[in-house]
Formats: sequence, structure tokens, C-alpha cells
Amino acid sequence: MAEEGPEPATPEAAATQTATSGVTNVDAVELRADGGAVVIIDQTLLPNRLEYLELADAKDMYDAIFQLKVRGAPAIGVCAGYCYYVLARQEAARAAGYEEFASAMERQRAYLNSSRPTAVNLSWALSRMHGVTLAHQGEDPAGIVGLLRDEAVAIHREDLAMSEEISRLGASLLKDGDGVLTHCNAGPLACLGYGTGQGPLYYAHDHGKRVRVFADETRPLLQGARLTSYELSRAGIDVTLICDNMASIVMKNGWVQACMVGCDRVAMNGDAANKIGTSGVAILAAHYGIPFYVLGPTSTIDRDCPTGDDIKIEQRDPDEIKTMFYAKPKALPEVKCYNPAFDVTDHSLITAIVTEKGICRPPYTQSLAALFE
Amino acid sequence: MAEEGPEPATPEAAATQTATSGVTNVDAVELRADGGAVVIIDQTLLPNRLEYLELADAKDMYDAIFQLKVRGAPAIGVCAGYCYYVLARQEAARAAGYEEFASAMERQRAYLNSSRPTAVNLSWALSRMHGVTLAHQGEDPAGIVGLLRDEAVAIHREDLAMSEEISRLGASLLKDGDGVLTHCNAGPLACLGYGTGQGPLYYAHDHGKRVRVFADETRPLLQGARLTSYELSRAGIDVTLICDNMASIVMKNGWVQACMVGCDRVAMNGDAANKIGTSGVAILAAHYGIPFYVLGPTSTIDRDCPTGDDIKIEQRDPDEIKTMFYAKPKALPEVKCYNPAFDVTDHSLITAIVTEKGICRPPYTQSLAALFE
Repeated sequence: MAEEGPEPATPEAAATQTATSGVTNVDAVELRADGGAVVIIDQTLLPNRLEYLELADAKDMYDAIFQLKVRGAPAIGVCAGYCYYVLARQEAARAAGYEEFASAMERQRAYLNSSRPTAVNLSWALSRMHGVTLAHQGEDPAGIVGLLRDEAVAIHREDLAMSEEISRLGASLLKDGDGVLTHCNAGPLACLGYGTGQGPLYYAHDHGKRVRVFADETRPLLQGARLTSYELSRAGIDVTLICDNMASIVMKNGWVQACMVGCDRVAMNGDAANKIGTSGVAILAAHYGIPFYVLGPTSTIDRDCPTGDDIKIEQRDPDEIKTMFYAKPKALPEVKCYNPAFDVTDHSLITAIVTEKGICRPPYTQSLAALFE
Repeated sequence: MAEEGPEPATPEAAATQTATSGVTNVDAVELRADGGAVVIIDQTLLPNRLEYLELADAKDMYDAIFQLKVRGAPAIGVCAGYCYYVLARQEAARAAGYEEFASAMERQRAYLNSSRPTAVNLSWALSRMHGVTLAHQGEDPAGIVGLLRDEAVAIHREDLAMSEEISRLGASLLKDGDGVLTHCNAGPLACLGYGTGQGPLYYAHDHGKRVRVFADETRPLLQGARLTSYELSRAGIDVTLICDNMASIVMKNGWVQACMVGCDRVAMNGDAANKIGTSGVAILAAHYGIPFYVLGPTSTIDRDCPTGDDIKIEQRDPDEIKTMFYAKPKALPEVKCYNPAFDVTDHSLITAIVTEKGICRPPYTQSLAALFE
């Protein structure tokens, strides 16, 4: 568990460390052993720099969440739990009694919660922590602080157990040697432990099953390149980075036996919202007869949402498309890439071929030959 | 025709000119009116700068082709024809007679031809021009130069006629108000005139049919963003730039009534090689019931190629994926973007949903509900 682990490695040490699994090397959120700070990997610097940040005051915590230095719904939830605890320690030390402590923590909770107003795990974890404070009305703040540490650790532990179980179940769907195509990032950085969407890849690897992964770069924000290919490569898993539009040729080449993705919200009929581009991967997989798996905790299933039509899609800044925000290298030098310049579209998918001599319709063996007669 | 047109506009004038069609504003290759230079748009500077280059000596011509300042198979062919003519004028002025002229032109032909060894249109146009020189053995070089100008103009004129006819036929497949999704660039810059893959969009627009275009950015080299959205926007056509992985949601939204793409090689069974990602667009179109059209000259149909399996795919440098070579803005400020953060994958495409409580299979209305019982 986090609080029992060693001090986080220095960036230098971590960068030269030999990876043993996806988990040990890239724990995105930890509590510092003395309880005085939350330690996170600054995900905005990956893959070019692995740097740990210590968050000891509320402003730094707010900024880390707001600026996406820690991101991924489960990781934000765990981080928020520890942040609340670290701040509670400080407030308890200076509070005259319960009332002063509780009202200080209400302010801190509201402040942290405003860092990313739409992140469900953030408000969920902060409410759960604050619930402990409120449940012990009138008690000694120092004693409550101990309970808060237990609660934050419980949130972390439950998250790891959830991710371990999803990963184990997902890995049971893979055979030794399978190729797996994945999209975006739902691995150790976003979800802690093994992760969800990519969790089975780490689980399989750690349990002796070889997998060969194709990671979509995931435009516009390139999470697949910057984070997924980084994590898998660091964990010693065979990963090949591709542009999103190369998924079709990779499947056609026979290199993919399963697709695995995370999810942001699942409707009760099974429609699943996930990073832009996921539905395209699913259509390609269906075309090529490849199973397509969605992985996520039951908390992602929205019981108030009958179908995908009820899911509102966030629209983002056009500049994410127009300007390449990320001019630095976006994958580790050792990450393999597959970069075909062209692909071949099967004639069965083409409605007509338009030439200067006329419009050809299927069957093309006849209509194209007729052009030359 | 090129040689009868006005002097190319200055970059400043062109940049502020009101677009009347896709053609007038962005003629990628022209012969300067006095015949002393080939004038091209430097495509490597688009979309941030519209700059014309005058190519008057062989080294500049070689560099322009090698460095992709002029690109697109038809445009390269037309450029090569004019380059040969401009050099022939110079060689004829200093040659003592036919033999000296012809051997100088053989050297120039071989030199230009080596700038992009695999570009078929380059060697085709140079051979055709050189054939004129060889067909007039022993004649006065000054006279041959006149014939070479006619030949270069004929190559240009035939190219424009081909592109006009493809565009006219393609536009006949579109209804007023249709949304059209396109991939990569096969418009006026690459193909002159209206172009091929995007030609029908300009033809329809110039003939009073409204179209609404969705342009895939086309990773890794971003031709869709840098060139297609530039050309369409300058021509006053309604264009929305999307990342490649957004094609699925755009189709699902009901915004696309046809897909139109160019082609690099077509097998005799209709299998069509084109820019990476094209086959994915075709599979999405089939899924959503949208017609998918391939447009190109009959010269693209390879009679020695029975099926797509016989087409060799070029593999390119991994750094095109790993490093974002294009840090500058890659689309005009006025180009619209559609940037959804997520999409919804229909349950019919999902093989299983893996949660920490178990693996759910279709029908999901039952299996997901059972998780909460």
C-alpha cells in the first residue's frame, strides 16, 4: 500500500530503474511516508521527463488537478483523498477545536472541488472524506485526522482492488501471444494499479502471458502516444505506436486479436462513451471480426442513462486540432512505430470509381476493364 | 491556359484577394508569361504563408521537387514539363547545334528525373518532353523549343481536362446541400484545375450546388489540415477540419452524405491504394450506409495489378509519428474545427463489458442490470 511503500524514487533513479511491471515504476499518486505531502508524477512532462511533485499546500494541490498534472478519473479520486488528509493534518494542528477544524475543512473541500468541477471522482472522494469529518462532530480533530488517513488509504486500496479485478478478468479474455489494439490511456497513470482499459495487458504480462500491443496515438491530445506507449514500454511490454488512422491496416494485417478500451460512461443498454475515436475502432474491429472489449468499474455504469443518446458529449477548443500543442517528442525513443504511407481499400467498400472516362460501378473486374476496351 | 494568364499575383495580393473558385486562387504551377521561369506555390509554407517561387535554373527546379515545394503527382508532371521547356530555352540559346542541344537536354532530363525517383508522373512528363527533342533530330534547336512549349502546355491542358471531367462526373453524384467527408489532399494544389479526390467539391460549388465538407487532418503529415482545409477555405467552400478519429462521430451525426477520396493506384478488381487511413474511412462509411467514392485518372488504374494484395505499401520514418514536425498552426485561423472529446460506441459493436464484478455479454440490458441486483 501507498503509505507502507518506500519513498518515491528520485526522477533520475526512476528513469534508469529496470521496469518489473507497469505498476511499480509508475505509481501516479502516493502519500509521502511521513503523511506531510501527496506525491504525484507530473503527467504533463511525460514522456520526456519523469518528475515527481510533492503537494503539501492547497494551492499546489488545486493547480496539480487543474493543470492535469494528475489526470484520469480514478487517480484524481485517490489524489483528492490524500490531499484532504494532508490538509486536515495541518488544519487540526492549528484549530482550537472541532468547529474550527470542520469549517476549515469545508473551505478546503470546496476549494479543491472547484479545480475540475465536472470530474465525478474528485467530488465523490472529497465528499467521502468530508463525510468522515462530519460524522465525528465534536470530537478531537487529532483523532479525526487518523480516521481520515484510514479513509484515504481505503479509497486507494479499493481503487487498486477494482483495477486488479478488472485486469484479471480482462486478461482471461486474452491468449498467449495475442495482439491487442488500444486507444487513449486507462493504464497505471490514470487508474493506478494495473489500470482498466489497459489493465489486462499488464496483468497478462506479469502472469506470463505475452501480449503485443498497438497503441493509437489518440489525437488531438495524444494520450496514447505520450502516456500509454510510455507506460507499456517502461513496463517491458511489446508496444507499437500508430496514428489513429492506421488501426485499419494493422487489423487487416492480422496483427490484432482483441481491442481493449476504457470507458467514461456506460449506458444501461451497453452503449459506451469513451475518448473520441473509440467508436471508429469498434466499427473497424467488427468489420475485421475482432472482439472489442470495454473495461471499467461498475461506477462508470450510469443507471440513469438508458442509451448512449442520453450521454452529452463535451466539445473542446478548436486550437487543440489546429495547433500542435506538443512540439516536443511525444514518445520515448525506444518506442516502436508502424508508419505505412498508404493503405488499400477493398473493392467491396467502394460505391463507385470515378475516372475521366466515366463512373465505374461494381463488379469492377468488368467496369474497369471496359475503360480500356 | 497557363501561358495566357496574368502574371502570378504577389503573395500579398493573393492573400487578400477574394476567392472566386478553388482554381483561380491557388494555381500551384504556372509558366511565367515570358517563358523564362516556372512559377509554383511553395506548398511547404502553407497554410501559414502563400509564397510563389520562380524556378529558372535546374538546381532550383530539382530542389523544389525534392523538397516537396511542389507535390501531388499531376502537379509534378505539369511542373516537370514546364521545367524541361524553360531549360531547353536556355540550352538552345547557347548550343552550337542539335547534337549539343540534345545531349544537354538528356543531362537535364536525367538530373530532374533523379529528384524523386519513384514519382511516375515526373519521369512520364520528362520522357514525353524529351521524346519531342529526339523526334526532331538535326533540326534547329530554336524551332524545337517552340514545339516543346506546345508540348508542355498540352500536358498541362490535358491534365486540366482530365481533372475537370473527373470533377464534373463526381459532382453529378452529389445533391445540393450534401455533406462530404474527404481524406488527405487531391485538390487544386496536387492536381491543378479542380483536382481529383476533392475536385467535385469545387465543381459543385462553382456550379451552384452547395456542399459542406469535413476534412480529415490526415496524420502523420497533416495534408488534410495544411492543404485541403486551406484550399477549400480559400475557395469559399464550407469546410470543417476534424482529426482522423472523428470521422465516425461526424458520420453518426448524419452530417455526411458521401465520402470522396483520391487514389494512388487502383487494381483491376477495384481495390484502391490511397493515403493511410482511407480504408478506415471506407469501413466507417459502409457501417453508416454512406456511399464511398474513389476518384482518379485512368492512368492510376494499374492493368498489371490484379488485386490490392499486389500493391506494395511504402513504410516511412517513425519520427513522422513520434515528433510533431509541424509546430506552427496547421490550418488557417478562419477554418472551422469540430472537436468532440468523446464518442459513443454502440452496444451492438461491443463483444463484452468487463467490470470488477464480472464480464457482461449481450444482451446488455440484462447483463448490466444484473450487476446491480
